[in-house]
Amino acid sequence: MLGQMMTQPLLISSLIDHAERYHGNTEVYSAETDGSVTKTNWAEIARNARRLASALSQLGLDPQDRIGTLAWNNRRHLEIYYATSGAGFVCHTINPRLFPEQLTYIINHAQDRVLFFDATFIPLVAALQDHLTDVQHFVLMGPRDDAAAEQVAGLKFYDELIETGSPDFEWPSMDENTASSLCYTSGTTGNPKGVLYSHRTTLLHSFASNTRDVVGYSAMDVVMPVVPMFHVNAWGSPYACAMSGARMVLPGPGLHGEALVDLIDTYGVTLALGVPTIWQGLLAHAAQSGSELASLKRTIIGGAACPPSMLETFRETYGVDTIHAWGMSEMSPLGTTNNPLAKHLDLPLEQQHKLRESQGRPPFGVELKIVDDDGNDLPHDGTTQGDLMVRGHWVLDSYFLLQDQALLQDGWFATGDVATLDPDGYMTIKDRSKDIIKSGGEWISSVELENIAVAHPKLTTAAVVGVPHPKWDERPILVAVRAEGEEPSERELLEFFDGKIAKWQVPDKVVFVDALPLNATGKVLKRTLRDDFKDALMA
Amino acid sequence: MLGQMMTQPLLISSLIDHAERYHGNTEVYSAETDGSVTKTNWAEIARNARRLASALSQLGLDPQDRIGTLAWNNRRHLEIYYATSGAGFVCHTINPRLFPEQLTYIINHAQDRVLFFDATFIPLVAALQDHLTDVQHFVLMGPRDDAAAEQVAGLKFYDELIETGSPDFEWPSMDENTASSLCYTSGTTGNPKGVLYSHRTTLLHSFASNTRDVVGYSAMDVVMPVVPMFHVNAWGSPYACAMSGARMVLPGPGLHGEALVDLIDTYGVTLALGVPTIWQGLLAHAAQSGSELASLKRTIIGGAACPPSMLETFRETYGVDTIHAWGMSEMSPLGTTNNPLAKHLDLPLEQQHKLRESQGRPPFGVELKIVDDDGNDLPHDGTTQGDLMVRGHWVLDSYFLLQDQALLQDGWFATGDVATLDPDGYMTIKDRSKDIIKSGGEWISSVELENIAVAHPKLTTAAVVGVPHPKWDERPILVAVRAEGEEPSERELLEFFDGKIAKWQVPDKVVFVDALPLNATGKVLKRTLRDDFKDALMA
Repeated sequence: MLGQMMTQPLLISSLIDHAERYHGNTEVYSAETDGSVTKTNWAEIARNARRLASALSQLGLDPQDRIGTLAWNNRRHLEIYYATSGAGFVCHTINPRLFPEQLTYIINHAQDRVLFFDATFIPLVAALQDHLTDVQHFVLMGPRDDAAAEQVAGLKFYDELIETGSPDFEWPSMDENTASSLCYTSGTTGNPKGVLYSHRTTLLHSFASNTRDVVGYSAMDVVMPVVPMFHVNAWGSPYACAMSGARMVLPGPGLHGEALVDLIDTYGVTLALGVPTIWQGLLAHAAQSGSELASLKRTIIGGAACPPSMLETFRETYGVDTIHAWGMSEMSPLGTTNNPLAKHLDLPLEQQHKLRESQGRPPFGVELKIVDDDGNDLPHDGTTQGDLMVRGHWVLDSYFLLQDQALLQDGWFATGDVATLDPDGYMTIKDRSKDIIKSGGEWISSVELENIAVAHPKLTTAAVVGVPHPKWDERPILVAVRAEGEEPSERELLEFFDGKIAKWQVPDKVVFVDALPLNATGKVLKRTLRDDFKDALMA
Repeated sequence: MLGQMMTQPLLISSLIDHAERYHGNTEVYSAETDGSVTKTNWAEIARNARRLASALSQLGLDPQDRIGTLAWNNRRHLEIYYATSGAGFVCHTINPRLFPEQLTYIINHAQDRVLFFDATFIPLVAALQDHLTDVQHFVLMGPRDDAAAEQVAGLKFYDELIETGSPDFEWPSMDENTASSLCYTSGTTGNPKGVLYSHRTTLLHSFASNTRDVVGYSAMDVVMPVVPMFHVNAWGSPYACAMSGARMVLPGPGLHGEALVDLIDTYGVTLALGVPTIWQGLLAHAAQSGSELASLKRTIIGGAACPPSMLETFRETYGVDTIHAWGMSEMSPLGTTNNPLAKHLDLPLEQQHKLRESQGRPPFGVELKIVDDDGNDLPHDGTTQGDLMVRGHWVLDSYFLLQDQALLQDGWFATGDVATLDPDGYMTIKDRSKDIIKSGGEWISSVELENIAVAHPKLTTAAVVGVPHPKWDERPILVAVRAEGEEPSERELLEFFDGKIAKWQVPDKVVFVDALPLNATGKVLKRTLRDDFKDALMA
């Protein structure tokens, strides 16, 4: 016997409908590619999304055809998010920082039939155009631009395209499990793989994001996603903000400290989301300019482990509560967020701060476990390390077009991370499975060593990798980038670890480099470092 | 094309699984019928729920058979919530304050096959037993009690029953639209009607409740639902608290001010939910005892309009943020909550406080509109009054066993309330459709007049009803209950309205009574008052 309740599908179009109906005059500020800032609002975003959906529907596309974007965080990108998914197409956000051959691979693999792009990427698209097998419509996100039209054959213009659509377009109803959006992961090995989200998973992820202990977006918030809309849907913020009716500040292409501090102070940003490297730049500029980041109340930091020193600076200097989060493209992305439990509030402040350093605990909807090499469950005791497995309402089942390749193990997805779990479910990422250092049967977390090293005032950044060792199989070395004008000695850097970690975990050697090798999304290419320094300890 | 994500049904059993896994040692305090307070936790609630589910599954019941409860807010009731729905039965909570003939009607109409009840209700169940057509198992919620066994034939005992079940019981998987729970509405006309919730609607309602701008339950909270678990599932708090991992304080049968203040102060309650009359008693006792309600941060007030003076007392005297909410059994129940928007935070404080007096705005998942007598949409301008219509993910489609009676109008449910909506969706209930006073073509809200009258220090309570008038069709009269030892005059009471409302809305007359007639759930029977005083203005 079924319940006797109304049944409505969970659709992305209902998010923008809600934002228009109840938060129509709530502002969305958009830093454009030309440097200006546009003020719009949810009603106008909704209206333009319907016009664009109507225009796209007249292009002769098939249901769930992929529509690609190469774009910054701006209002047109937000309109494309809702227009494409709302009309039944798949919004395929593409990371423009990838190498051209990866972009070609991804766009062709996804069979994108339309490609939207910001003016920044005109030369890139011009170079790619001949290699793209399925794209029929190239659309520059802006008004007519004759110079651009000469570079990209058959170029269309966003502001003209939406003129051909009707604001009275009605969102189609569909199965809530219909594909809605697509992101490719930037793996360090093999071809990029796509994660195909559905309307249902997107809405459940939005609900969870809006709960108080996850991100807790609110209509009282002014939200600035610094994390790009081409990176796992800006962690779902464009959806969650429409659901809650938050004000948004979309920072466009300028993600350096000065621009971000200026946006925060001008528009009263209360909640900002991004990766640690972004906040390094922001904190440096705030310190230099004297901004107090007065409006900012919360930051969500994810994408990489957040150094404890950064949590402390936000807390002590700016009164900002930093919520450490962890996720993956394969998880929409939210897997854990670090908010306290009632019992923690009775602990001494120092202990409370310490507890905030882990990646946090899963919300309802996500389950975590750790297993050994044979897949056996390991205890959640806060110290045992194991391969982290996840399952839940917004976790992938298989990669796009790779349904036939069994991916899950007993219904669980292997994250590729090594982690500990404590009895309350607080998870600490120790390392990527392939980066953890196996020294004489003991595991050493490269991340923990890096967190210590980057706090050294004479270094700009550092990485730790395991390299072959004649006796211990593998031992850690520190690959360090000196701060300008500084000449730290190897000994002084290694002594910096004293008392912060067990003696046997201290790196065996320091090598100095001018810069760390990064992949297209800014992650350190540890594989390259391991390769470069494979003989460092084999004297 | 569907998304390639894991698909899991949204089931109530997954809520208790989550609470056990990640919040197992989080406390649940339960005031028992015998006056003691038991300390348990989510892990033990989950374990007992599985044992009870296992025991119930051995009774030969059919899927979705109804299992009734006549019980206070306590730990066994919480276990029954999860055991019944989790195992695939329907948890049918029954309001023990109804009249015996209504109870008989409801239990027989629902075809309850098991009836759980607290010791308080032994005489009631003994009296009803012979009239109940389908109940096969009567279960007293406690240990063996030989005296009780003599009063109720074939009596079973909860603490013995769960001993027959296994804690290793595995929750069955099922369609998320399966019926999960049932509440009857206490209409003032006709037979009570049942609302049959599903697992999906319960979980979506829980997600929405946990969002920051609705109730925002948190694992940092200590939550006390004073609203009964037999009243629309205590507004969903037993589900939402498991989802968020909140501590709970279940207040049992003692809902007077002294008991509630004591529970708040002893267990550090941060968030409490209930109807205005409950808070009157609580505030009176707090004032008398000198308690500062130090731990309390938020109250959710619903079930009836909250007098502005109560919002003010909570805010100014106790520093408690009161969130005015509105809902119905037919809506699971949450329809609106009053939390501000970003733009409101710039207004002068007095205006902000004024804005908090309305019933608030709908979360994502609920839509509101107002219509005239012909069903035409009316403007959302904050002043036009109309019949309030709702639709959404947790709104009923038809009443239990009344699928054949078309209930919805074009997909919308008519709430029976008259309301205004402002452009941001903030809704103000003006009156029940049947209680609004139609004076010479203008509508007068009885609720607004009552809010003013009850603030008069010489009255305990008051009601306003419209009665026939020779010239204006209908005019308001004030039915007042004097405070002890006070003798207010008619003139002084009517002058109290001066300047607070338009002159023509001031009641024509005051009649004094010793008490207002109440229905079984404590609502004023205005129909009776209209009848009693129908000639008051027809001199």
